[in-house]
Amino acid sequence: MTQGRFIALEGGEGVGKSTQGRMLAEALRTRGLDVVTTREPGGTLGAEAIRAMLLSTEGEGWGARAEALLFAAARADHVEKLIRPALVRGAWVVCDRFVDSSRAYQGGGGGLSDAEVLDLHRIGSEGLLPDLTILLTVRPEVSAQRLALRDGGTGDRIESRGAAYHSRVAEAFRSFATQNPDRFAVIDAEGSPDEVHARVMTSLAGLLA
Amino acid sequence: MTQGRFIALEGGEGVGKSTQGRMLAEALRTRGLDVVTTREPGGTLGAEAIRAMLLSTEGEGWGARAEALLFAAARADHVEKLIRPALVRGAWVVCDRFVDSSRAYQGGGGGLSDAEVLDLHRIGSEGLLPDLTILLTVRPEVSAQRLALRDGGTGDRIESRGAAYHSRVAEAFRSFATQNPDRFAVIDAEGSPDEVHARVMTSLAGLLA
Repeated sequence: MTQGRFIALEGGEGVGKSTQGRMLAEALRTRGLDVVTTREPGGTLGAEAIRAMLLSTEGEGWGARAEALLFAAARADHVEKLIRPALVRGAWVVCDRFVDSSRAYQGGGGGLSDAEVLDLHRIGSEGLLPDLTILLTVRPEVSAQRLALRDGGTGDRIESRGAAYHSRVAEAFRSFATQNPDRFAVIDAEGSPDEVHARVMTSLAGLLA
Repeated sequence: MTQGRFIALEGGEGVGKSTQGRMLAEALRTRGLDVVTTREPGGTLGAEAIRAMLLSTEGEGWGARAEALLFAAARADHVEKLIRPALVRGAWVVCDRFVDSSRAYQGGGGGLSDAEVLDLHRIGSEGLLPDLTILLTVRPEVSAQRLALRDGGTGDRIESRGAAYHSRVAEAFRSFATQNPDRFAVIDAEGSPDEVHARVMTSLAGLLA
């Protein structure tokens, strides 16, 4: 029995999730709403500790299955200690990435089936889903350009293998949106931040009514 | 297609699992077998890092669901990097606690259903089960006495609430053994270490034949 609203921002790297998350939170606060902004993996002390462990390159690295369980553990902590309490008190939660990122990155290409990733989410977080998932999409060349700028122009993160990988992730996100049109708003994230923000607010009209 | 044998030692605290594990490994080595001894949670670099995080009391502590996912993540790393490779090369693996400890401690009384704990094991470790699970059992008063000695006589770990908890865990282990008689050997762990070891070796006769 949650009272608040749960909005997730999803999409590959370089589509503008964090910029749009900040602009969305600001717009909701202007309307007098209680807004909590957070991100995954992370968001709570425990989840940030797991995030650090996931990103650490010590040892031999994590296998696909251990990694998926660690992401689900971080999400379980995040949902239990931050997201659910905020929703219960009536806040709007704006979260940079949520379970659909696990489905896109660990599921399918990552070695686990989509059903397995969803099973982990059911067990860890009682299957909590956002009221609205805003999927930001750009053409691959635009995402590559933005990432290159972020890396100070070195473009280290966009080698040829990376491009195929990012394209597979983008395709996975699109298929989730097609399967769940009621929960997803697919937003063209090309153009200025203000232009994209206007599209995001239009997609929220139903929830804000 | 594993060639080795996987033996897990299970039971509540103070039943003698680590002593019997050492004696069993020694006896197997005397027979010329390649033996790997390990424990859970832990056994690999990644799993030991998760163990440390589970035992840390910083922050607000872990909820039941995050904790179960972390145990499953540690086990996935342990199975992938240590247990399976050892079994594939033909070694005998002697492990102090395995999935039945998660079923007894996190399942049931711990807030998750047994089916959920087994789902996590299926996803994390492809449901790997020991060839033989040696369940060491003692009367509650004997376990309490051994734990009191281990704590230097302070008996801090055996307050009245602890007794009810340990009794519930012992009951859970017994029910798993009843449900899976082929996989379990229930061993009376009272008496001297040598007496108990003799019973353990008798239970292994089939595997050693």
